Amino acid sequence: METHKQLTIGLFGFGVVGEGLYKVLQQTPSLNASIKKVCIKNPDKKRNAPDNLFTTDKNDLLQDPEINVIVEVINESEPAFEIVSTALKNGKDVVSASKKMIAEHLPELLGLQKQTGRSFLYEAAACASIPVIRNLEEYYDNDLLHSIRAIVNGSTNFILTKMFEDKLDFQKALLLAQQLGFAESDPSLDVEGWDALNKWTFLLTHAYGIVEYPEQIVFNGIQNIQLSDAAVAAEKRFDIKLVAQAKKLQNGKVAAFVLPQFIKQDDHLAFVKNEYNGVVIESGFADMQFFYGKGAGSFPTASAVLSDLSALRYQYKYEYKKLYHHKPHELTRDFYIKAYLSFDEWTNIPKEKFEWIEEWHAESDRKYLVGVLPFSELFGNNWWKENNTSLILAPDAIIEDVEIRRLKKKSLELAGIME
Amino acid sequence: METHKQLTIGLFGFGVVGEGLYKVLQQTPSLNASIKKVCIKNPDKKRNAPDNLFTTDKNDLLQDPEINVIVEVINESEPAFEIVSTALKNGKDVVSASKKMIAEHLPELLGLQKQTGRSFLYEAAACASIPVIRNLEEYYDNDLLHSIRAIVNGSTNFILTKMFEDKLDFQKALLLAQQLGFAESDPSLDVEGWDALNKWTFLLTHAYGIVEYPEQIVFNGIQNIQLSDAAVAAEKRFDIKLVAQAKKLQNGKVAAFVLPQFIKQDDHLAFVKNEYNGVVIESGFADMQFFYGKGAGSFPTASAVLSDLSALRYQYKYEYKKLYHHKPHELTRDFYIKAYLSFDEWTNIPKEKFEWIEEWHAESDRKYLVGVLPFSELFGNNWWKENNTSLILAPDAIIEDVEIRRLKKKSLELAGIME
Repeated sequence: METHKQLTIGLFGFGVVGEGLYKVLQQTPSLNASIKKVCIKNPDKKRNAPDNLFTTDKNDLLQDPEINVIVEVINESEPAFEIVSTALKNGKDVVSASKKMIAEHLPELLGLQKQTGRSFLYEAAACASIPVIRNLEEYYDNDLLHSIRAIVNGSTNFILTKMFEDKLDFQKALLLAQQLGFAESDPSLDVEGWDALNKWTFLLTHAYGIVEYPEQIVFNGIQNIQLSDAAVAAEKRFDIKLVAQAKKLQNGKVAAFVLPQFIKQDDHLAFVKNEYNGVVIESGFADMQFFYGKGAGSFPTASAVLSDLSALRYQYKYEYKKLYHHKPHELTRDFYIKAYLSFDEWTNIPKEKFEWIEEWHAESDRKYLVGVLPFSELFGNNWWKENNTSLILAPDAIIEDVEIRRLKKKSLELAGIME
Repeated sequence: METHKQLTIGLFGFGVVGEGLYKVLQQTPSLNASIKKVCIKNPDKKRNAPDNLFTTDKNDLLQDPEINVIVEVINESEPAFEIVSTALKNGKDVVSASKKMIAEHLPELLGLQKQTGRSFLYEAAACASIPVIRNLEEYYDNDLLHSIRAIVNGSTNFILTKMFEDKLDFQKALLLAQQLGFAESDPSLDVEGWDALNKWTFLLTHAYGIVEYPEQIVFNGIQNIQLSDAAVAAEKRFDIKLVAQAKKLQNGKVAAFVLPQFIKQDDHLAFVKNEYNGVVIESGFADMQFFYGKGAGSFPTASAVLSDLSALRYQYKYEYKKLYHHKPHELTRDFYIKAYLSFDEWTNIPKEKFEWIEEWHAESDRKYLVGVLPFSELFGNNWWKENNTSLILAPDAIIEDVEIRRLKKKSLELAGIME
């Protein structure tokens, strides 16, 4: 105990997470951490804490030499970055839950950590109660991580679950998610995949040493998924999930994206229902690990912040081993994917871009096909998310460059037999 | 990096785990850890490593001031304790995978850690690749842990899976497990529940601050489970698992045991098949977490040792918060359990000890009943594991003292109606 750092905390934000943390800390005396000051935007709002705890002046926290840890759980990305970078420069350790800010400022934040030598922890920014960052940092070494696949957004997973289990259409499922507090009043960040993309951006850094801005990563949300897609999935005995994934290819580069996918019912991710999150990691040594838990909410997020605070007491820092101690992996778009697409009109689909098409169905109102595309087609192009077109990856979606010729030949032969 | 401790390792044991660790370390240069010497029992056995690495004299490791970490992965409990206690006293940090040794010497090991101030880590001793100890240490605070339920023995889980899925009887399933390397040639440690009991002993310390010797904890294995039990379970749409569990009761005390149990098919533990392990933790803040992974084997165990080594570099120690920073919880046997029992003869069952019996069935060769017993009946008594009798807990097995009267009345009324 005597070697432990005493934590005196300056907290930015007193919304659901901030207040959750305040309560959790009160019930965790063993941590020996106390909140000295809380910076809020609106001083007139009624708070469940003593008045003298609050200030609206960020410098009351950032310039207080007694405060050695800044915890930042505000919503806006740019002010959050301002707070975090000032705090690090002022010699304070920082705990953050701002996924968007971290994703958008990753290179600067890595630089600031190097420059200041301070610790910057953000377990709460991805999957909340699941210790995914800590696991990637401590359990896996670069060469050994075969793949990581995850459901990192609880809102969209809840909506998809309701579309499947209760046959609600997308709008009704979204409304239910909003009523239950699993989706924001402006749900586009979640529903269109931005939130999952942001989390995936920095999880890729911990998993593979990849440092890219979010706009370099192909992604989509679930906004175009139709009840008819769910029906096709059910017929094939698949679920549909919004899956963030990364896989090391035979050429040593990494394929990574966030896209809806058909999931086999015995896949671990099929087990992840409603607002829960899940992470499946496959590696050479630990073999396969599956983590499951609440990915959002006041207390689950606060408990992740708490675990970061606990780690700060013994000077824990992320090492970014895959980035600094190895040759970091390179993101690639040179591979192929097998995908299901449903659409209103054949003219919306550039059929010539497909390597081959394995199935096609034309119902009166909605058509669909299953085919193989160069993955690079999804980058920079938007035809596959526009005009109500819904692209959903096949279960084993990634086809490597080295396999494409053999598989194409086989597929064409099969087609010949069927003619 | 500069603040990290350089690890110079003395390794005891070069069996599957020891050799696995040697290989894993070679592939993990970023850890900056090297094995200086390996102590083995048999110098004549051919090893896949340079000869000069090996010694048969434990003092070559324990007395070498350059070696600052002892890793101990030998099988015998008493020599392991001797090694660990000498190493700690000689100022070395220690990583161990010896569950039996830790369970049998828990109070002494806690004392040695206090006395020497050294770190003693043993993530590999329970659930191998699942970081369950680290999670209990860092994510959960005393008052908040409602329950923990786990499958901690892969051998028995493999056997039960085969009995269910392939309708193998116990002996055939065991033989298959042995052929595939999931069970020892002497399988009694696993099959009779000793291995799970040992792990549960020290997991209870991290979860609830309970320090008890294994013999204080009620347990059984799966040696008496019959194919006919599996058939009854299947009829009721249950699985059978060997579940280690602990639950905080309304009186603040903890019910804990390792027993076979009927598991509902939507229970997270039903998801854990074959040789895998799984842990479900329910708590006030993080809500519910489920961890799943390989619980044994060369590389999964080595990867857990690796994560302990990684933690040693920044002077990580278990804090045993629930033991030292709180009033530790007390183990209780003052509650009731609902259980299924199958048996050869009615005379084997002391019916007068049951509070009430809800079901009874008499087939020609095998009989069974479902009833409610004082849990204390299982302690010190062996009638429920002898004479081929098989006791399997009902899904919600624990009935608290405060509920027993109401439930008994209800049950008797129901019986009256049915008469």
